[in-house]
This record gives sequence, structure tokens and C-alpha cells, in this order.
Amino acid sequence: MDDSVASTAASKLAVAEATAVQRPRIVIVGAGFGGLEAARHLGRVEADVAVIDCRNFHLFQPLLYQVATAVLSPADIAAPIRSILEPQRNTRVVLERVSGVDIPGRAVLIGERRVPYDQLVIATGARDAYFGHDEWASVTSALKSIEEATAMRRRILMAFERAEDSDDEAERRRLLTFVIIGGGPTGVELAGALAELATAALARDFRRIDPRTRRIVLVEAGPRLLPSFPPRLSKVAERGLRQLGVELRLGGPVSHCDAEGAVIGDDRIESRTLIWAAGVVASPAAVWLDVKPGHGGRVPVGPDLTLPGHPEIFVIGDTAEVLGSPLPGVAPVAKQQGSYVAQVIASRLSGERQPGPFRYHNLGSVAAIGRRQAVVDFGWVRLTGRIAWLIWAVAHIYYLIGFRNRIAIAINWLWTYLTNERGARLITGPD
Amino acid sequence: MDDSVASTAASKLAVAEATAVQRPRIVIVGAGFGGLEAARHLGRVEADVAVIDCRNFHLFQPLLYQVATAVLSPADIAAPIRSILEPQRNTRVVLERVSGVDIPGRAVLIGERRVPYDQLVIATGARDAYFGHDEWASVTSALKSIEEATAMRRRILMAFERAEDSDDEAERRRLLTFVIIGGGPTGVELAGALAELATAALARDFRRIDPRTRRIVLVEAGPRLLPSFPPRLSKVAERGLRQLGVELRLGGPVSHCDAEGAVIGDDRIESRTLIWAAGVVASPAAVWLDVKPGHGGRVPVGPDLTLPGHPEIFVIGDTAEVLGSPLPGVAPVAKQQGSYVAQVIASRLSGERQPGPFRYHNLGSVAAIGRRQAVVDFGWVRLTGRIAWLIWAVAHIYYLIGFRNRIAIAINWLWTYLTNERGARLITGPD
Repeated sequence: MDDSVASTAASKLAVAEATAVQRPRIVIVGAGFGGLEAARHLGRVEADVAVIDCRNFHLFQPLLYQVATAVLSPADIAAPIRSILEPQRNTRVVLERVSGVDIPGRAVLIGERRVPYDQLVIATGARDAYFGHDEWASVTSALKSIEEATAMRRRILMAFERAEDSDDEAERRRLLTFVIIGGGPTGVELAGALAELATAALARDFRRIDPRTRRIVLVEAGPRLLPSFPPRLSKVAERGLRQLGVELRLGGPVSHCDAEGAVIGDDRIESRTLIWAAGVVASPAAVWLDVKPGHGGRVPVGPDLTLPGHPEIFVIGDTAEVLGSPLPGVAPVAKQQGSYVAQVIASRLSGERQPGPFRYHNLGSVAAIGRRQAVVDFGWVRLTGRIAWLIWAVAHIYYLIGFRNRIAIAINWLWTYLTNERGARLITGPD
Repeated sequence: MDDSVASTAASKLAVAEATAVQRPRIVIVGAGFGGLEAARHLGRVEADVAVIDCRNFHLFQPLLYQVATAVLSPADIAAPIRSILEPQRNTRVVLERVSGVDIPGRAVLIGERRVPYDQLVIATGARDAYFGHDEWASVTSALKSIEEATAMRRRILMAFERAEDSDDEAERRRLLTFVIIGGGPTGVELAGALAELATAALARDFRRIDPRTRRIVLVEAGPRLLPSFPPRLSKVAERGLRQLGVELRLGGPVSHCDAEGAVIGDDRIESRTLIWAAGVVASPAAVWLDVKPGHGGRVPVGPDLTLPGHPEIFVIGDTAEVLGSPLPGVAPVAKQQGSYVAQVIASRLSGERQPGPFRYHNLGSVAAIGRRQAVVDFGWVRLTGRIAWLIWAVAHIYYLIGFRNRIAIAINWLWTYLTNERGARLITGPD
């Protein structure tokens, strides 16, 4: 028995070695929701898979706002890409920043270095967009990376500290005023968490200021919050945030931002803390691929998510625009697309029939309004209040990667819920 | 009943207001182990207490090495000073960096600003010292702050990443060689944690390198590790670290450090990661107080921990040198001194007899050697092995501040122990 197993293993090894040179090479750029899902579904194919990312961890971006508001630690929402993919012996991880793609030569470029591919998946996500006002980037805080989240946390906590220290009443008001630009899920969730940070965790900790007197202004250019949700749920979110003391400015965009405030319509709001949650643009894959970008800088792709004329190049997630059927820039779209392209690639490798065009199954949308309520839209049923919050919490924990992170976050939430304290109230990094 | 309580409260309030101007002012500089302990023992005195620190959190420094080796998150070993002192309504917290002391004018200086005091406690700790080689600071990683710990974590994890990426065998060896300078508790604990990081958490995650082939060199100028412990326990620590694969270089100091290695005696060790755990110097309180610094830059103080000739100025912890009875720079000394000066100040305020000279009660020393053994020296009994590790763990959790941090660390340790994984394997911040 042992002998035959050993000899089978040895012959498999010999086959693997003999065919190593000819094994198809699959390169995935980006280990976000889409890229990682693709990689995980390619763990057993007879191919060499390379996952390239400029960070060593997969980031659970939907909870980044909880790092910015001192509820969670960065490590709670990050998981090392190498350990996630460690069991897949056909997969290697490359920690580098991609600089371009040589399409005729079929290679991803990392500076001078070339990573050749037979099949390429680009899943590089999106970054913040300032609608032609790139100068606003330097006066607003955004929320796309761990570093931005801890910088936002520092800025928020320092505003209260400086207000406590200030003898200038106008400056104190400016420091205690927070303007959040963008009324989508990120803006709504940030506004709720920030309101509760001031009214609960910080409430009694200062001697000269009362953190509860802070002013939080949420600005949305469109007529209602959460534009992607049904209007009834927008109303619930608006009422919920108002109850938490958040001031809403709907129906007009921000026309100016500087270090001391923002202008909305004709109204200037003095504030030392402007938070940007208003819009994203796709990462520069369109430049790499030398195609005319679609909406929001996205790369236009066909129904099988490949670049027209290049069946070997897939683009997914926030970087892709499926021609004829635009999809929202959310994690479930990226994940389903990742799993779909893995299926297409696997079918090509095995010679099976390729699956039909990609179809998005909308599982629903959720957004939390503070720690006690949320809105949930499953399409067939819509929920609000505490039960919705519970669904929100369970869904987030379910979609997290790794048992440790799930436990850590569940305990942190329970802690915050029971004590009103924030577990990660640290001002770190350079000012 | 209610009425009399209310009237008592009201009259107390009236007294407090009437005497508010004359209340003695106690200023504590530094919220480390010593300063925080002093502040906590002054919560009920009839005085205005101000705690000044340049950080918003108290840091549990003994576990900083576990942040650097990706076991714990910064928030696990930090607690916001404001929330700790929030219940003490006579105490306020000032987040500022002190720049000096005006002794004749009895005021702490924060740039242009003056914070007047009647009693002053200086507890500003220590920083790394390079024995006259300040240029080594730029090529070694030290471990005194959260930022230094996450920078060290980045440097350690990046060394493995770069080794995986490198085609140059000499450079790969350099990247996989780690030199820790200093064989005290910090150096010993770091060496053990780093050895286990490579052999357990990272072991299978790379494809081109084997992290288990890393070389860790621990350098101690003196003849044995843990010089402050009994020789028998030094032997145990040495054997324990050797079993974990750590190479020991005892009995000779480092004579040179640069970006590619260090020289010990006549021997050059090529390494991209030099870690400094060799010595500290007191913070610049001696300059503020314009006194001739004692050993290690410390401020010489009398048996009641006051500056000679200035009974209103106390200096404690790593910043102080008690004339005639030098004490080690460890947390229990600082804490006992903090509680002692609070007692002295309280007795002065109430007119009671001042306590006798400060006496240090040595409760014992502990040092962990990896995750499974430790050395414990209680004086009357000395322990090693797993039971010692358990005592080490319980002692650390006991001395932590805050229930949340205790729970978080206990769970992280259990997780690391059971799975060999590291919960905070993040490469963050600028390179």
C-alpha cells in the first residue's frame, strides 16, 4: 500500500516536473475581493498561478470606516495574502507594484521585470476621484487604505484634542465641525460612527469642551442619501442619522474645499476636518491596456469579462465596465466576477465548454446607521432597525476572511456595544 | 435623606468653587507606568491635577516586541489616557510636548505656553542610547514607540519578501539574517519571537525561500544573557534560545553597524536587519532641570525622590537615579515610585506626616523565551519552562490596563499558540 502510494506520488512529481515548463501561466493582478476570489478558485488547476499585489494583505474595505473611527484595529480587517493562498501549491504571491502590461509580448511589467502570462486577470480596484478638483485631495481625508484610515483616525481624534486646547471660540467650532462629502454607504456609515464616537466614547473625557456639541454635516449632491437603495430606505437612513445628530445637506454638490472649510451651494461651512466619500475612479488599468476608458475610468469588457479582441485578458471588479450592463462598484460584484473568470479559465484549460456570459446575482445591499440600526435591501424584502443591524453585522462577519478576524471583530463590536468605549483610540503616525 | 444628601453635595460644590482658585496645582509630565500610577493615586485629593503627555495613550512597553513580531496590534497594548483618568474629575489631560521647566517661576513650559505647578512630577521615561554612535540609529531598528514597533514589523516582514524576490544568493542570505543587539529581556524576548515567526507562521508561505533557514544572531557585550537575572536562569535562557535556532554572541560588543551588516569583535555579519535592544538613556529632564545628569542621563534625586533643594519637584521611573541605591529601569520601579510620590503629595496637602524614604519591593523578574518557556526569578523561588511561561503570561495580563486589552491579548496569545499564525502580519507605512 505504502509503496504504491509513494510510487504514484513520485510519478506524479515526475510528470509535474516534466510538464513544468509547458504549464499555462495565469497571472492575477490585485488581491482584493475579485482577484483573491479568482485565485482561490484556481487552486487545483494544472497551471502556474501568480498573484501580484503591492500590499502583503487582503483588505476588507467595507469596514475601513471602523478603523477610522477607532472601533477596529487595522489587523482586524486585513489578512496576509500568503497565508490565505499558502495551501494552493500551484500559486505564488508576488509583492510588487505593477507598472504596465506588454500585450503583444504577453507579460505584466514590474519596472524592468517581466512576468509572462498566458491568461491575465486584472483586478486592481478603484481609487478616490475628486471630479476634476485634485487639489481637494490634500485638504480632505479619504478612506481607501489602512494608512488613510489611521490618518483619518488621527485627524478626527486630534480635532477634539486641539479643540480642548484652544482658547479661540471660532477655531474651537471649526475643530468640532466635521464635513463628510458623499451620501453613499461609506458616507452614511462614517457619519453614524463619528456621531457615536463623540456622543458615547469621548463624551466625558474632556474638561473644557463637550464632545457632544460637535457638528457633523453629511453632504450629498443628489436628492437623497443611499441613491442605490429604494427611496423608502433612504428616508429611514436620513431619519436615523438626524436622530444621531447628523446634519444633512442634500441636493447640492460641494463647490470648494480648503484647509478651513467647504462650500456647499452658497453656504460656507467652517471645518478643520473634511472627509471625502464621494466618488471613485478605476485604477489605471485602462492606461496599461491602452484602451479608451469607459465610465469612471473603467475598462470596457465583453459579456465574458475579456477585453474585446483579447480573450486572454480579463478585467473584473471596480476596474471593469461590462458593456451594456453596468454594475455597482461593490464587493459582491467583484467576487462573483472573480469566481466566473476562474471558471472560464479552468474550462479553457480542461477543454470543457466555456460557461455562458457573466450574470450578476444581486444578493442585496446593507448599510449601517450607527451601532443600533441599519437598512437592508434584499429586493424581495426590506428591513430596518435593530434586526437590520444584526443582519448587517452577521453578513460582514460571514464575508470576512479568517477565523481570527471574525472573532476579533465580533468581540470588538460586542465590547463597543456594551461599554460605548472604542478599542483603538490611538493617535499614531506623523501629523 | 435625599434633601440632606443634595444639600451636602451643594455645599461641597460651593466650597469647591470658592476654593477653586487656591487649590494646589499638581502637574505630572508623562503618562507611562510611573506618571499614570501617580495620577491614579491622586484622583481624590483636593487639588487640580494636570497630566501632560505628547501621546494620547498609555503604552504597555513590555509587549512592544510582540507588535514588532506581528502577534499583537498596537491598540492591544495601548489605552487612552483620557478614558483611564476620566472618572477623576480633579484631573485633566493635556496632549502636548513639554519643552522645559521654569523652576523659579514654577511652571512647565510647552513652547510659549506655561502650565503653573505647586508640585511637579517628572516621569518622562527613557529613549534608546547608542553609546556615542548616534549614526547607528539610522541603520538599526529600535523599539520604544508604536511607530518604531510597526516600522520594525515592516522591516522584518519585508526582509522575507525581498529574499523571496531576490536572485542574488548573497543578498538573499543578508536579507534572511537578523542581528539583535542587546541580551537583556527585550533582546531575549525579541529573538525568541522572531525565531518562531520564521519557523511557524511564515514557514510554508513562500515558494522560493525557506523562512526556516533564517539566521538570528543575538549579541550581548557581557558574558551572559539576562545580566540582571541569576546566572542559572541565564543558562536556561541561552539553552532555550539555542533550541529555537538563535545564534548567541556573548562577551563582546558591537563595534560597527551599517545598512548591510554589523561587526562584532573581528567578525562581520552581513545582515539587512539590525535590531537595537542594547541601551537606553533618560529623557532630557536633566536639561530641563539644569542639573548634572547621573548614570545614563538620569536625574539624581534624594531618598524621597525629590530634586535636592527642590522638595516641590519629584523625578521618578527611568528618568530618576535614587542616590545611593540605583534601581533597574523596569515598570515595577516606576509604578511603585509613582504611587509613593502620590502618597507624599497627598500627605503634604492634608498636613499628615510624610512617609519615610522610598523603598523598592522587588516582586521578581520574568522573561519569555518564545511561546512555550520563560524564566522567572522571584528571589525566593526560580522557575523555568512552561510553568514559568504561564506565570509570565498571567503577570503581563494582570499588569495591563483595561479589560478589553486583557481579553484581546489573551485571545491573541491563545490563537498564536494553537495555530502558529500571527494575527497582525501587516506591512504598513512608508518604506
